[in-house]
Amino acid sequence: MSFAKLDDHCRALGALEHALSILGTDEAVNMAPGGGEARAEAMAGLSGMYHRQATDPHVPDWIAAARAEELTQEQRVAVDELERSYVNLTCLPPEFVERKMRTGMRSEQLWRTARPKGDWEAFRPALEGVVALMREEAAMRAEVLGLAPYDALMEQFDPGNRSADITPVFAELKAFLVDFLPRALAVQEQRRARHPLKPLSGDYPVERQKSLGLAMMQAVGFDMNHGSLSVSDHPFCGGVPTDVRMTTRYRTDEFLSALMGILHETGHGLYEQNLPKAWAHWPSGKARGMALHESQSLFVEKQIGRNPAFWHFALPLVDAHLKESWTIEDLLPHVHQVTRGKIRVDADEVTYPLHVILRYELEQELLSGRLEVRDLPEAWDAKMQASLGISTLDDPKNGPMQDVHWPSGAFGYFPSYTLGALMAAQQWAAIARLNPDVDAEISKGDFTMVNAWRRDNIWLKASTGSTPEILEQATGEALNPAHFIAHLEARYGG
Amino acid sequence: MSFAKLDDHCRALGALEHALSILGTDEAVNMAPGGGEARAEAMAGLSGMYHRQATDPHVPDWIAAARAEELTQEQRVAVDELERSYVNLTCLPPEFVERKMRTGMRSEQLWRTARPKGDWEAFRPALEGVVALMREEAAMRAEVLGLAPYDALMEQFDPGNRSADITPVFAELKAFLVDFLPRALAVQEQRRARHPLKPLSGDYPVERQKSLGLAMMQAVGFDMNHGSLSVSDHPFCGGVPTDVRMTTRYRTDEFLSALMGILHETGHGLYEQNLPKAWAHWPSGKARGMALHESQSLFVEKQIGRNPAFWHFALPLVDAHLKESWTIEDLLPHVHQVTRGKIRVDADEVTYPLHVILRYELEQELLSGRLEVRDLPEAWDAKMQASLGISTLDDPKNGPMQDVHWPSGAFGYFPSYTLGALMAAQQWAAIARLNPDVDAEISKGDFTMVNAWRRDNIWLKASTGSTPEILEQATGEALNPAHFIAHLEARYGG
Ligand SMILES: [Zn+2]
Ligand SMILES: [Zn+2]
Repeated sequence: MSFAKLDDHCRALGALEHALSILGTDEAVNMAPGGGEARAEAMAGLSGMYHRQATDPHVPDWIAAARAEELTQEQRVAVDELERSYVNLTCLPPEFVERKMRTGMRSEQLWRTARPKGDWEAFRPALEGVVALMREEAAMRAEVLGLAPYDALMEQFDPGNRSADITPVFAELKAFLVDFLPRALAVQEQRRARHPLKPLSGDYPVERQKSLGLAMMQAVGFDMNHGSLSVSDHPFCGGVPTDVRMTTRYRTDEFLSALMGILHETGHGLYEQNLPKAWAHWPSGKARGMALHESQSLFVEKQIGRNPAFWHFALPLVDAHLKESWTIEDLLPHVHQVTRGKIRVDADEVTYPLHVILRYELEQELLSGRLEVRDLPEAWDAKMQASLGISTLDDPKNGPMQDVHWPSGAFGYFPSYTLGALMAAQQWAAIARLNPDVDAEISKGDFTMVNAWRRDNIWLKASTGSTPEILEQATGEALNPAHFIAHLEARYGG
Repeated sequence: MSFAKLDDHCRALGALEHALSILGTDEAVNMAPGGGEARAEAMAGLSGMYHRQATDPHVPDWIAAARAEELTQEQRVAVDELERSYVNLTCLPPEFVERKMRTGMRSEQLWRTARPKGDWEAFRPALEGVVALMREEAAMRAEVLGLAPYDALMEQFDPGNRSADITPVFAELKAFLVDFLPRALAVQEQRRARHPLKPLSGDYPVERQKSLGLAMMQAVGFDMNHGSLSVSDHPFCGGVPTDVRMTTRYRTDEFLSALMGILHETGHGLYEQNLPKAWAHWPSGKARGMALHESQSLFVEKQIGRNPAFWHFALPLVDAHLKESWTIEDLLPHVHQVTRGKIRVDADEVTYPLHVILRYELEQELLSGRLEVRDLPEAWDAKMQASLGISTLDDPKNGPMQDVHWPSGAFGYFPSYTLGALMAAQQWAAIARLNPDVDAEISKGDFTMVNAWRRDNIWLKASTGSTPEILEQATGEALNPAHFIAHLEARYGG
């Protein structure tokens, strides 16, 4: 009876999550420009309701009573994960949650206006408001969880991950990359000297790119009966597992960035679509966290989508939809292009972690108070110069204003991108050990075995363990950056 | 303090209404085919939450306490309307509301599948389930409100309207129309003999029709900063006042049906966009009801949009967007076309009320149990033959399966369409009395005075009185079908 009570509890929360998720997608894709204020109020109200219901003081009693009942193994795991989630949620009073939601939404709306103009001064007060709130939040979470403030924030996104483990891994990776990047660029230059780069530029109507994207999504396993592809300013994968809302943005002067973006979001979408249906409304049935989620998107984008074997299958599709003819020799240099650039979402496999580590370092400084928002453009610039040799001081739009994360209040989220890249490489290595023919299968467009492994080892596991536990169960070892480093050496090291 | 408590109460309900409204629009416009079941569960859950909060047993105490405070006139009206709304909502237990929501959504989804195939037998059990629920609901409402069962259903849509008043008006109108229709058709035939009909058929790309529709929406006053136009199977006007979601459907072989549909939904949209902002979350600040709402859409579609004066202004816009050249003499016969047809939404001003009165009569019989769903196709056919001389017996898709209302559980709603037509004609007559130059203004595309009158007399009144009260305050008289009958005589009587 108490387990049934918890089941109803999760179902009610599921209805509010569904609403918040679809409203969030709708805001980015369909909302009228003047609808923002009322939408912010509505989402703040629903978020407050969610928080009040999720933190219902009866939940601990129901959990205790359920544990006294005869439960299956799955039910026990579900109750444990619900308790973990409850403890994380009760860190914050509902008043704070509403305030954060409202501040975050307004600041995000301001960001959408100020960013195209690169108007840092117009945006700065909003970000200051968010940072002040995040300091409060980190302190409250840290106290309850007995974790360091930054770890307490990360715990929401990746249960079990700790900065004490991540910082040395990132330091090692950064040291490797700062050394490796000039080497990779030199290799690229030599290759281009032998085989000149055929420009990607051309005229690619959005409709053709969209039909190519849809074909590619379906080829790698996306179920169009339970999802769709739209356009938004910042690509994302939202919606609900039964109706995954992927978005992308198109340029009409080249097709590769939208296509790789679609492959990336498809990786997120596959994870959501293949979570265990029976537990969809329980915390244990949801995707584990952002790092594992990102490992799924990067698996499709990088391990599959930038694998030369994949292009033997993909190139005819590209040609058919875009009505062009590309050779692998002409396309791969674009797929494997390495560039020192300002923009994280446009970055390549080699430089991307440098963008992330920069944010990981800066957001810890912002939270601790060692850095203030007014000094952010200079701090950002200094790190960009040190790791990528680029200045963004005169270009805040493509400096600290480029991402939606901070304006919307998502601190502790950025490391997940690079943790995801490390985990994706580790998962690929595990698959390749089991199945040495994986490249041959992929070159035929056969993703059966790859998807079956991921379904059994990642997707169906949902949140039945912590992030490090699921990774270790799946791959037989703890997080090991050697796989990612070896992957970069093999693909870019010459 | 108690008024402030009620204000918070309305604000929380507003958040749930916002979610339900956007989710409803999203379902029709953007949802993936396989997303229906989870969406139905989520909306049932939110609807149950809404009902539980709206029927909070503390509300009567808060209302009593608020009335003991010093209130403005606006606040007193707001409290009165909240109480009316509370009484209507407490007719039904939350368990019933959730069951109705779930049954209605599933039956609507089944309707969406069965209707294109005209599969009456597949659809029938779903409709039977809905009718059984509606009988329960009408009985529960009738008991609490002290009204007849059918009146108790109508009370949700049009407070103050009673079948005892409507039935004789509809009987008179039906008698007039059954006599008038052959006369109007004969007049039409004579006109066509003098001036042969130029076919509407052609090739009209959706994009051009959409740009024409958007131009027309803006011309008559729709604010694109607070709304948008999409495509759905069944045109509607949804969303929220700050973000009105209009939809239409396009045929590419003619442009008039989509255009007139857009004008119709624009009328709904103008009402929503111009409701009083300060009271948006209170029942008194919402649109009064379906009949008045329909009077606003029919005002734009029929009183403005089929007025010959309007086409002096509109035709150049049509020509510019569709890249064609029409004369008024060639287009008006289409705008004023009268046809005996099967489909309500395609019907003209003259025949439309006959479609509505048929449904008004049948739904009363279904609710009272004098008619069962299995006998509906025959009953429908008999009435179609008697009033329009058409049989639908072999074509259930265009007979009793054509509308979304019954499958989604909206009984007592249909009369609003024709009440709206009567009220629109009465409002137009009131405006023409005040401003004899109204036709000249409209022929110049100047809707200033017409919209100012409607803003002051209808839109800003919101729900500060019952439907008959608002109509009488606006036009100086009670509902008077003579205006509509005179309007039809003048436009179609030769
Ligand atoms: Zn991602
Ligand atoms: Zn309407």
